[in-house]
Amino acid sequence: MGDQIGQIVNGKLIFIPFEEFERVRKSNISYLNKLEVISSLSRINVLYMIANAGSGHLGSSFSSMEIMTLFVSKMNTQEKKSNTPVFFSSKGHDAPALYSVMIASGLIEFSMIHKLRRLNGLPGHPDVLTPGIVANTGSLGMGVSKAKGMIFADRQNKIKKNYYVLTGDGELQEGQFWESLISAKNYEMGELTVIIDHNKLQSDSFVSNVSDLGDLEAKLKAFGWKVFRIDGNDMASLINAIDEADKISNIPKVIIADTVKGKGVTFMEHTSLDSDVDYYKFHSGAPNEDNYKLAVSELLDKAENQFKTLGLENLNYDFVTRPMITITESVKSNKLVNAYSETLIKEAEKNSKILALDADLILDTGLIQFKEKFPDRFIECGIAEQDMVSIAGGIALKGFLPIVHSFSCFLSSRPNEQIYNNSTERTKVLYVGSLAGLIPAGPGHSHQAVRDIASVSSCPDLIMFEPCCEEETKKGVEWAINKSSTSVYIRLVSVPVTLPFKWNMTNLIPGVGSFLRNGTEVLIISYGPLMLKHAFEVAEKLEAEKGISVAVLNHPWLNYFDINYLSEIINKFQYIFTIDNHYYEGGIGQKINALLTNRNSKVSIKNIFINGIPVSGQIDEVLEFHKLDTLSISNMILQDYNHESSK
Amino acid sequence: MGDQIGQIVNGKLIFIPFEEFERVRKSNISYLNKLEVISSLSRINVLYMIANAGSGHLGSSFSSMEIMTLFVSKMNTQEKKSNTPVFFSSKGHDAPALYSVMIASGLIEFSMIHKLRRLNGLPGHPDVLTPGIVANTGSLGMGVSKAKGMIFADRQNKIKKNYYVLTGDGELQEGQFWESLISAKNYEMGELTVIIDHNKLQSDSFVSNVSDLGDLEAKLKAFGWKVFRIDGNDMASLINAIDEADKISNIPKVIIADTVKGKGVTFMEHTSLDSDVDYYKFHSGAPNEDNYKLAVSELLDKAENQFKTLGLENLNYDFVTRPMITITESVKSNKLVNAYSETLIKEAEKNSKILALDADLILDTGLIQFKEKFPDRFIECGIAEQDMVSIAGGIALKGFLPIVHSFSCFLSSRPNEQIYNNSTERTKVLYVGSLAGLIPAGPGHSHQAVRDIASVSSCPDLIMFEPCCEEETKKGVEWAINKSSTSVYIRLVSVPVTLPFKWNMTNLIPGVGSFLRNGTEVLIISYGPLMLKHAFEVAEKLEAEKGISVAVLNHPWLNYFDINYLSEIINKFQYIFTIDNHYYEGGIGQKINALLTNRNSKVSIKNIFINGIPVSGQIDEVLEFHKLDTLSISNMILQDYNHESSK
Repeated sequence: MGDQIGQIVNGKLIFIPFEEFERVRKSNISYLNKLEVISSLSRINVLYMIANAGSGHLGSSFSSMEIMTLFVSKMNTQEKKSNTPVFFSSKGHDAPALYSVMIASGLIEFSMIHKLRRLNGLPGHPDVLTPGIVANTGSLGMGVSKAKGMIFADRQNKIKKNYYVLTGDGELQEGQFWESLISAKNYEMGELTVIIDHNKLQSDSFVSNVSDLGDLEAKLKAFGWKVFRIDGNDMASLINAIDEADKISNIPKVIIADTVKGKGVTFMEHTSLDSDVDYYKFHSGAPNEDNYKLAVSELLDKAENQFKTLGLENLNYDFVTRPMITITESVKSNKLVNAYSETLIKEAEKNSKILALDADLILDTGLIQFKEKFPDRFIECGIAEQDMVSIAGGIALKGFLPIVHSFSCFLSSRPNEQIYNNSTERTKVLYVGSLAGLIPAGPGHSHQAVRDIASVSSCPDLIMFEPCCEEETKKGVEWAINKSSTSVYIRLVSVPVTLPFKWNMTNLIPGVGSFLRNGTEVLIISYGPLMLKHAFEVAEKLEAEKGISVAVLNHPWLNYFDINYLSEIINKFQYIFTIDNHYYEGGIGQKINALLTNRNSKVSIKNIFINGIPVSGQIDEVLEFHKLDTLSISNMILQDYNHESSK
Repeated sequence: MGDQIGQIVNGKLIFIPFEEFERVRKSNISYLNKLEVISSLSRINVLYMIANAGSGHLGSSFSSMEIMTLFVSKMNTQEKKSNTPVFFSSKGHDAPALYSVMIASGLIEFSMIHKLRRLNGLPGHPDVLTPGIVANTGSLGMGVSKAKGMIFADRQNKIKKNYYVLTGDGELQEGQFWESLISAKNYEMGELTVIIDHNKLQSDSFVSNVSDLGDLEAKLKAFGWKVFRIDGNDMASLINAIDEADKISNIPKVIIADTVKGKGVTFMEHTSLDSDVDYYKFHSGAPNEDNYKLAVSELLDKAENQFKTLGLENLNYDFVTRPMITITESVKSNKLVNAYSETLIKEAEKNSKILALDADLILDTGLIQFKEKFPDRFIECGIAEQDMVSIAGGIALKGFLPIVHSFSCFLSSRPNEQIYNNSTERTKVLYVGSLAGLIPAGPGHSHQAVRDIASVSSCPDLIMFEPCCEEETKKGVEWAINKSSTSVYIRLVSVPVTLPFKWNMTNLIPGVGSFLRNGTEVLIISYGPLMLKHAFEVAEKLEAEKGISVAVLNHPWLNYFDINYLSEIINKFQYIFTIDNHYYEGGIGQKINALLTNRNSKVSIKNIFINGIPVSGQIDEVLEFHKLDTLSISNMILQDYNHESSK
């Protein structure tokens, strides 16, 4: 599930044009060879798409490439009928592989190759709005269940049709996967074949290091499924296994496809790593320039050799030239996860009661140094958020302070009942949800936490806090650990943000915010680095261009307010705006509106927030789409300002 | 998890006093015999407690009685040291068994025997506020995870201590259970022993009918655990198995304890049922008077025989006499689940696209008739809510209309991420969460859905609706199926309520409520039968006693409002009150406040809602505790009325 912010590759990015795939398909080489060549070429396009997008999951796109190629071919070569088999990936983060072969086969328009993780392009995880995509996946563990639903529907229609669902191996740590096995067997779902892309590595490291799956074959057999095991990067074995599986019609089947993560590029292949390696570098995030060049050259060499061996004419490729971008790490760029990480370690040095729990996102949640420094106080739970949160509950009951980590989209929802259950035990647990809010939008709606405040903030005795800068993160973590008597959920924006303001508070007081900018007419209330940066820029812009005096209040307390404090502030302004990096429902805009409903004043509060299902794309285009960019916010404020002034 | 409203038994209710347990313990019969006798006597007390409470889980309290007796004895006979083993039940609904032996052994004050499911008594599911209870359970699947957390904490303290966790067998359908097995093995948790109360029946029927567990031993072995299998109602076998398990210190252990649901009372024992029986009658809900008398007489006979055989003097028992209560089923008593059930069938007759999904609560969610009438359109998912909701997602993608059922406490939280994922596919799914709100409060906070609106209402394109009477339920279901273009979550109060008002609307319009009572000064806005009944009674009372004219507006739309409609209504009153059967956070009070924040009027809106962790108890005492009874609400309104009038 990892979704690190990627690198930017400058210069020439190579891709294989549609015509080359057509040439291969029309050649007189065997069906098997065609599939093998298409896999090779598609790897070049996957590398292109991810390097071009600046993020994406290389490792498992490469490991699953043969599987993707075969199934897209099966779907495409048969005339579409009511019983044409259906294939989709449950893990979803291998979407670049799926897209690249769908593009190569004409199922998705070729120009989309340039639009991975772009607005109106191909989202980071699959979405049914893309032609040929049958289910929204990327939230792990749901795929098998969805296929079962489709099979129940087919059975109503008296249609017998096969479903093939690709899963990850790390994904098998999710409880829903095991739930889904039980009734598939009981309902005799011979229509269903699961293919496990068993590439041995999950987000952070080897599956066996994170949460060993043990004897996977025995487990799956014990659940009553028919189990096959093959080399999943060998096309002939794959074809054969699927043929064998198709012959069995009364029980569900699972093919453990042993694959190599990063397959095709030697230095990305997990088999080139020592088994005790700490972290795999190519799960998510684009390659840097050097790695890109090495990788593309190896992939091109291999493909050219294949062409030669098979008697095909020389391979042609195309390229785009990306403008040189000099990325100078801004000194002011705020990385909250880093600040979190450092503060956590400082606190843990003083307080031996602190234990940190993680669900396979150690790279993204900032726990590497903690784990290195306090290996005995770090608990890797695997991709099993419900188990993790209840483990934390048990730890808290024994007087320790568990700190639970994941992406906020997952942490707020997958173990939602478990968080409430912990609350009812009146213990103190800290939850740290990173990747909070709309941005990064590359991964798409499965990873965009835009309803996490709503789903968690009603838990009794739980305060939600979102800092706006490194310093506030530090203070917030110190407060949560040392001062707060209740559980705390810290919501962290993961993208680095260069802030135009300075935050300066010596002490945090729950329910009390801080002014980042003074003003007299308009007040903007928001939280977190991204929205506050925009709020601040809006303020500067309106003052410079229109002479309007705009104050910006940072209110990091997401479900805890002081009515007197807020009333007093609000009474000083004529125009009040809240900005939420969240839906209106459950956001601070709604909460502040509600709190101040009886203020008996003529001053209106207007709310700016995320509307609709969040789109996937680059930061600027997504902010603009959701009208959360500086210009859109300015215009909204101005419209209201002018409207009121003209009354 | 089933929690039907129970029967009331009138007349003499028999229990075994503390002194009799003491006499057994001090006698010279063997340790084994003592445990057996205590089990027999405790069954009488379990029957007493449940009959006295009017609800509770008989079947699994009886099946687990030997296990409970043994472990309470193990905890009690050893001097409490830092390494005294810990035992708790994960399923939690067997709490009456645990309480009865804890009471018998003096761990819980004896007078508590009369206070099952009563305020300041013993909650329906375990709570750490009760002495000797170590974890809040009852939300299934969390127990093993919690024990793991405690073990991690012990390891920090360099303490080696054994944990014994009792689970149900139906509970094993929860994904979290399987999640929890994986890391217990990897962390070599020899401290952990799980005992499965394998009584073959879950809430509705035989586990094998609901969602067969298949070869349970093979499954558990495949997860790397050491597996034992014994007769769990045979004390000697139990003692032996635990001794054997204790000898293994490097891997977690599981004892499959084959037990008999309802053990001890012939007609309650599942072995007396045909295996194709549809529903087991003694999972939850108290026995009726005839059954109580039969059962207690059999249990007494058995215990007296045991005493005789072992050479103990005659058994003495005590009793309380419950006043005769004639329950006349009121004609006006509204049963929303029944109305739901009937409407669903009528709609399903017309619309073959409707499929109903259930998670082992067919008795409680009103699906029995549907299943009988449309067996092919009913999908029993077992206690696997995440799987169920994603199955529904798959069904909806194929153009069918899936209707998903569970208790609202579970449905809103366990599959929270799955509901959002379905939303992102822009399909229509109906969710029906029964047992909504504070009441019944017998089962305790794990079953009280008081934050379900908060956790679900932020899902895009999802409308939440709560009807107040049978007729509105009917209209609401018709609207949700035939008119709504979005997904709908129907929140249903499960307790029958005798309504003092008549609801009369021909058509439902989203965002538009209905007046149940007219008035001119005070307006109360609420929803659902229970709160509206109180609102109505408050209105009558205030008008009769104080001459205040109070209107009552039913607003069944929980996250969908029409600002113009509401503004217009509100402007006609001087005092506005909202009443939520929910927390303030996410409730309609907060939502209406927020919506009307810019109303620019001197009229205040006051919110009445549930505060704090909901308590367990009888309806009236719990409503009073949470200040949601007629008197408390009247006083709150009056206080405000007088305060404002005196200004």
